[in-house]
Amino acid sequence: MPQVSQKGLAMPASPIRKLVPYADAAKKRGVKVYHLNIGQPDLETPPQFWQTLRGLDMKVLEYCPSNGLETYRKKFSEYYNRIGIAVEPQHFMITEGASEALSFAMLSCLDEGDEIIIPEPMYANYIGFATVGKIVVKPISTSIESGFALPSIAEFKKAITPRTKAILICNPNNPTGYLYSKAELETLREICLNHDLFLFADEVYREFLYGGKKFHSALNLPDMQNHVVVLDSISKRFSACGARIGALVTRNQQILASALKFGQARLSPNTLGQVAAENLFDLGEDYYTEVVKEYQQRRDAMIAALNNIPGVVCPNPGGAFYAVAQLPVADTDEFCQWMLEKFSHNGATVMMAPASGFYSTTGSGKSEVRLAYVLNIADLTAAMACLQAGLQEYSATKQ
Amino acid sequence: MPQVSQKGLAMPASPIRKLVPYADAAKKRGVKVYHLNIGQPDLETPPQFWQTLRGLDMKVLEYCPSNGLETYRKKFSEYYNRIGIAVEPQHFMITEGASEALSFAMLSCLDEGDEIIIPEPMYANYIGFATVGKIVVKPISTSIESGFALPSIAEFKKAITPRTKAILICNPNNPTGYLYSKAELETLREICLNHDLFLFADEVYREFLYGGKKFHSALNLPDMQNHVVVLDSISKRFSACGARIGALVTRNQQILASALKFGQARLSPNTLGQVAAENLFDLGEDYYTEVVKEYQQRRDAMIAALNNIPGVVCPNPGGAFYAVAQLPVADTDEFCQWMLEKFSHNGATVMMAPASGFYSTTGSGKSEVRLAYVLNIADLTAAMACLQAGLQEYSATKQ
Repeated sequence: MPQVSQKGLAMPASPIRKLVPYADAAKKRGVKVYHLNIGQPDLETPPQFWQTLRGLDMKVLEYCPSNGLETYRKKFSEYYNRIGIAVEPQHFMITEGASEALSFAMLSCLDEGDEIIIPEPMYANYIGFATVGKIVVKPISTSIESGFALPSIAEFKKAITPRTKAILICNPNNPTGYLYSKAELETLREICLNHDLFLFADEVYREFLYGGKKFHSALNLPDMQNHVVVLDSISKRFSACGARIGALVTRNQQILASALKFGQARLSPNTLGQVAAENLFDLGEDYYTEVVKEYQQRRDAMIAALNNIPGVVCPNPGGAFYAVAQLPVADTDEFCQWMLEKFSHNGATVMMAPASGFYSTTGSGKSEVRLAYVLNIADLTAAMACLQAGLQEYSATKQ
Repeated sequence: MPQVSQKGLAMPASPIRKLVPYADAAKKRGVKVYHLNIGQPDLETPPQFWQTLRGLDMKVLEYCPSNGLETYRKKFSEYYNRIGIAVEPQHFMITEGASEALSFAMLSCLDEGDEIIIPEPMYANYIGFATVGKIVVKPISTSIESGFALPSIAEFKKAITPRTKAILICNPNNPTGYLYSKAELETLREICLNHDLFLFADEVYREFLYGGKKFHSALNLPDMQNHVVVLDSISKRFSACGARIGALVTRNQQILASALKFGQARLSPNTLGQVAAENLFDLGEDYYTEVVKEYQQRRDAMIAALNNIPGVVCPNPGGAFYAVAQLPVADTDEFCQWMLEKFSHNGATVMMAPASGFYSTTGSGKSEVRLAYVLNIADLTAAMACLQAGLQEYSATKQ
């Protein structure tokens, strides 16, 4: 029997999905599972999306251009212009979700052995994509005590080596919900200009801001047109995760040319998702206001409930719809599995993502979990009661 | 300005799409372009696909499982069982087209520096995917004189080294249209068993068979359950290229486990394409009979017309909807670009894929082109007249 690759064996299992078989087994036993493990919002995809699909007068579902439909890129760039980011349709490469956009950005900019600095905890799949390209992830620690703010410029400088090619941030952050300040972005700009580094910014949550906070796009940093690559997606903005429509956005022509070659090899992103989504960029301010109001209420409810549980600590996130909480357990991989395998409370349990998989530093985050507040407040409240009861029962099993 | 990656620079431009800017310019000048460069059929996607979309009662477009919707995998496996291939829903990993399936197969089975033997000419994007994984393509030559049949087992043995991990075939073949015989598959089986190699088989064209020929799936080779990985897609079968719904099919549990990790990193394939396509597997024999009849007529018309052009040689393909023809020109890269840039005949020209990009051996295929017979007979006939006139005029410019 031929042997599978070392690359496949080295590929980390996704902390977001690796416990799915335990959740499925729990459901089979009749236990309700509150899914806080994955950023799959319960909000409805805007009705315009479904209306467009119902009204489609298409005969042949054709490939689209490798960088996406021109009409879609035009609408998309108009939305960028409206929110104050000056880019043109030719600066977009449409991809299968932000996942493929990051994959193309990494492949286009970094070779095997090149290093990318990423504040940790980090979105788990960044580690997976780096594994594919044999790119070395150099984590830079942020801590729950300081609310996951960026460390000082001195800490960054310590991480930079001759092989460093890029810094990757997610803003607002997945998994921590941290929103980067203007000063932090300017710090990153200074580092990138001084050390000739690319700045990759995953901005898929840019509308999800709470408490009147302001968002600053990496694309608006001056003199950085050849350094900045933004990764974007409609998955969260329009609650359309299953559309798999993302984008790589950059003004760097070399990166666009290289990404196009990777894009041509897979022919094209899916056509239906773009066709159905392009009118969503016409949605007015009201749409975003409503969505943000809903998430802010959820955030407020979940964070308050978490910090009320004895031994749980959770900073208040400024954006996105995730939080990283510290739990009074030694190993959240074990605890999260136990919650699905052994526990229920009022016929329900909670699925969370163990945070160890969001750290590239081995042994970090063992007591933390990532929670996505993607359920309505009643369900979130029930989920928090469940978690509290679970922690109590689990602690008793450990005595 | 930071430097882009060597990997991106090494990535070959796609021969199928690299001339697109010249075709766009021709269209802007008012010239009609017959697209024989890409396997984008003009046949209508079955109406059931659009009906399902119109009738969708979905509120949230969610991620699906990383290996695809269970309902879709069930329907898909039923179709496999009907055509005599015994596989179960758990043997499928649904992917974004066969492109992603091949990418996952390569990443799961081969490491950097490992070798994969592929008969050439080969589907150009295979070379691109190998470049991503730094996998070494070892071409094994087939020739237009022998109609692109596989070479003898002795030739294969010469290509095998300690780093060889897999053989990849496309059956029926893209770009040559060659249909592998049962004897050839048995030869491949013997080689794979003796040398412990994976056999990847791209079978997306398995229904496209002409002249009463029979198809033999690699999945039906005995004792090969841990060796065979089939790559499949609905793009051609149902003229739904823009759906980007493919599959990796294998009974090897290790490969499935590894591919699932790569699949989890990109979360999920698109949901809409699967939902809309799942009922297409209920289409009866009539559907396939009609489609094949249409393509057989096109093949007959195009191949006859090609061989009628002075200096053109084209074997008659047994399947798929491509042919590789030898033209009386020294460099088809130059000629194909010239056809778009400088030539028109009755207000039209032809876009073809220069065959050099389908060879991994540098310098091979310089006089060949790939033609996809994906247009109706009237258009194909006009395209062939155009090609004939083009060859005549081009030859005059070379005197």
